[in-house]
Amino acid sequence: MAVTMRDVARAAGVSPKTVSNVMNGYPYIREETRTKVLAAIDSLGYRMNISARNLKSGRTGIIALAVPELSNPYFAELADAAIAAAGEHGLTVMIETTGADRERELTALARPRGHLVDGLLYSPLGLGPDDVDQLGTTTPMVLLGERIFHSPVDHVMIDNVAGTEAVVRHLLDQGRRRIAVIGVRPTEGMGTAAIRYGAFAGTLAEYGVPVLEELAVSGGKWHRSSGADAMEELLATGRKFDAVFALNDTLALGAIRALTAHGVRIPDDVAVAGFDNIDEASFSSPTLTTVDPNRVHIARTAVELLVRRMSGDDSDHQEIVAPYVLHTRASTLGTN
Amino acid sequence: MAVTMRDVARAAGVSPKTVSNVMNGYPYIREETRTKVLAAIDSLGYRMNISARNLKSGRTGIIALAVPELSNPYFAELADAAIAAAGEHGLTVMIETTGADRERELTALARPRGHLVDGLLYSPLGLGPDDVDQLGTTTPMVLLGERIFHSPVDHVMIDNVAGTEAVVRHLLDQGRRRIAVIGVRPTEGMGTAAIRYGAFAGTLAEYGVPVLEELAVSGGKWHRSSGADAMEELLATGRKFDAVFALNDTLALGAIRALTAHGVRIPDDVAVAGFDNIDEASFSSPTLTTVDPNRVHIARTAVELLVRRMSGDDSDHQEIVAPYVLHTRASTLGTN
Repeated sequence: MAVTMRDVARAAGVSPKTVSNVMNGYPYIREETRTKVLAAIDSLGYRMNISARNLKSGRTGIIALAVPELSNPYFAELADAAIAAAGEHGLTVMIETTGADRERELTALARPRGHLVDGLLYSPLGLGPDDVDQLGTTTPMVLLGERIFHSPVDHVMIDNVAGTEAVVRHLLDQGRRRIAVIGVRPTEGMGTAAIRYGAFAGTLAEYGVPVLEELAVSGGKWHRSSGADAMEELLATGRKFDAVFALNDTLALGAIRALTAHGVRIPDDVAVAGFDNIDEASFSSPTLTTVDPNRVHIARTAVELLVRRMSGDDSDHQEIVAPYVLHTRASTLGTN
Repeated sequence: MAVTMRDVARAAGVSPKTVSNVMNGYPYIREETRTKVLAAIDSLGYRMNISARNLKSGRTGIIALAVPELSNPYFAELADAAIAAAGEHGLTVMIETTGADRERELTALARPRGHLVDGLLYSPLGLGPDDVDQLGTTTPMVLLGERIFHSPVDHVMIDNVAGTEAVVRHLLDQGRRRIAVIGVRPTEGMGTAAIRYGAFAGTLAEYGVPVLEELAVSGGKWHRSSGADAMEELLATGRKFDAVFALNDTLALGAIRALTAHGVRIPDDVAVAGFDNIDEASFSSPTLTTVDPNRVHIARTAVELLVRRMSGDDSDHQEIVAPYVLHTRASTLGTN
C-alpha cells in the first residue's frame, strides 16, 4: 500500500502541513523538525510524492558540478569553493567527474538531469569549439574554466593569457633566459596547454628572448608523477636551462621533487613556477611561485549566474574573466 | 503538450525501442547512439517518464558518496578511487560533502535519496556511537572510514590501530624517544584522533618510553595550515623533541614547512611521519613516511558490498578492516 504524507506526519510526530512545508523547502522550519521529517520520509520510503513534487515545482535544491577529476587538487579545491558558494544560496552540490575525456564529457553533458538537479556547473577539458552545439541543454548551465570558445551559455573563465604573461615576466625579470616548459600538448591546437604555451612564447618575444623548443616537454595528465617524469626526461637530455614554467602546480611540484633528488638547487640553479595556486603551493619546500586563477571568485560568480538562470532569467549570456593574482615565493625568489 | 518517447525517438533518429533500451540502461548500445538519445531526452525536457521509470525500476544507476570535505586530499583521492570502482559496475558516483560536522552529517543522512540514487557510500567524521540508530535508512548504505562503532550497516574500516603502531614503532626503531604528536583532540573521547593517539601511547608503553603530554598539540581541522601553526606553537615553547607523529599527512606537510622555515633539519634534528599516504607524500621535500590505509581496497570493497545490498542481499552486515601499508621515506630515513 502506498505510503502517504499522513503516514510520514504520524511517524515524525508532526502535522501533515509541516511535512508539506519541509518538502516544499520552506525556510523557518526548525532544523530538528526538518531532520525528523526527512528521516521519516526516508525510513518509510516515501518516494512517489517527492518525485511528484519535483516534477511539479521543478526544484530539487541541488545543483551538479562536473569536473574532470578530483585527485587534481585544483578541481577538488574548486569543488569546495563551489559548495561554499552554493551553500550561501541554500543549495546543495552534487559532484560528478568526467575524466577530462571528450567522449565522457559529452555523455555527462547529455545525461538528463532535469529530475535530479536544478542546474549544472560544468568544467570541461576535452570539449572543443566543434562541440558548442551540444551545450544547448534545457537544464540551466554555467561553464567554468579555461577553454576559450564562444558558447550559448554563461561562462566564467580563468585569465590564462594575462596570468601566464605575469608569471613569465617575473621569471624574465629575475634574469632567467633559458626557460623550460612542462606540460605542453603539441597535438592539441586548442585548450589550456596551447593557450598557456602561446602566452609564454608571446611574453618571451616581447623581451626579445628566443623560445627554445627543445626545452618544451609534455607532462601526461598533469599529475605530480608526470611532472617528475618530464623533469627526469629533460635532465637526461643534458640540455641547460635556468628556469621551468610548469603549466600547472602539480606538474611544478613533481618537477621540484625530481630536481631536488638530483641535487639541483632551487632557485639558485633553476627557478620553478606553476599555475593554479593550490593550497600545497604555500607549503612545499621551496614554496611555489604561481598564478592564482581565483577559484573563490570563479565559484561565487558561477553560482550567482546559475541561480539567476534557474530563476528564469533569459537575458543574453555572459562571459566573465576572473581576475588572477600572481604569488611570488621561494621557488623563484630564494629564501624560505 | 507532454513529450513522449516517440518524440525523443524522432529527434534522435532512432526507434522508440532504442530509446527505451537506453533509458533502461541496457548494455550493448553504441556510445554514439546512447549520447544521441540522451541529448534528445535532455533537449526535449523529457522528464516525466524518466522519473516514472525510476519509480518503477527503483534504479537510477547513480550512487552517492558523502565525505567530509574535498580540500582534504585524502577524501578527494578516496572519491576518485570510489568513482573508478563504481565505474567497473557501470555506476556513476555523485559526491556530497558534509563538512565533518555532526549536525550536517545527520541532515545528509536524513536527506531522502530514494528518488536520486540507488545507494550511499557514507564517510562520517562527526557521528558517534549515539547516532547509530540514525543509520537504519531504506537507501542501501555502506559506511567508510575510521570511527569504530558497531552499526546496523556494512562498514569498511581503516586499520587505525595497527597502522599507527607500525609507524610509531618505526620512529622508535630509528632511536627517537621524544616524539611530539600533532592533531590531538582531547575533548573528543571517540574518533580518529583519539584512536590514533591511543595507539601511539600504547606503542610507546610497549617500548617503555614515556608519553610526553606537553609534546601533544592540537591541529585544528587537520589542514596544512593548521599543521604549520601547531608546529610553530610547539617550537615557540622551546621544548625539545626528536620526532613528530602527525595524525594525518596534511598536518605533517604543514609541520615540515614550519620546521624547514626555522632551519630544523629533517630527519637529522626531527623525524616526521604522517598517516594517509596522499599522493603528495611521495613528492614533498623530504618525501614523507606515512601509513597507507589502502583507499583503493577500501573503495572497491565498499562498492562491492553496496552493489550486493542494492541487489537485495539482506544477509548479516559486515565489518571489514582494510590492510594498511607502511611507507618509510626520507622524512624519517634521510637521503633523498
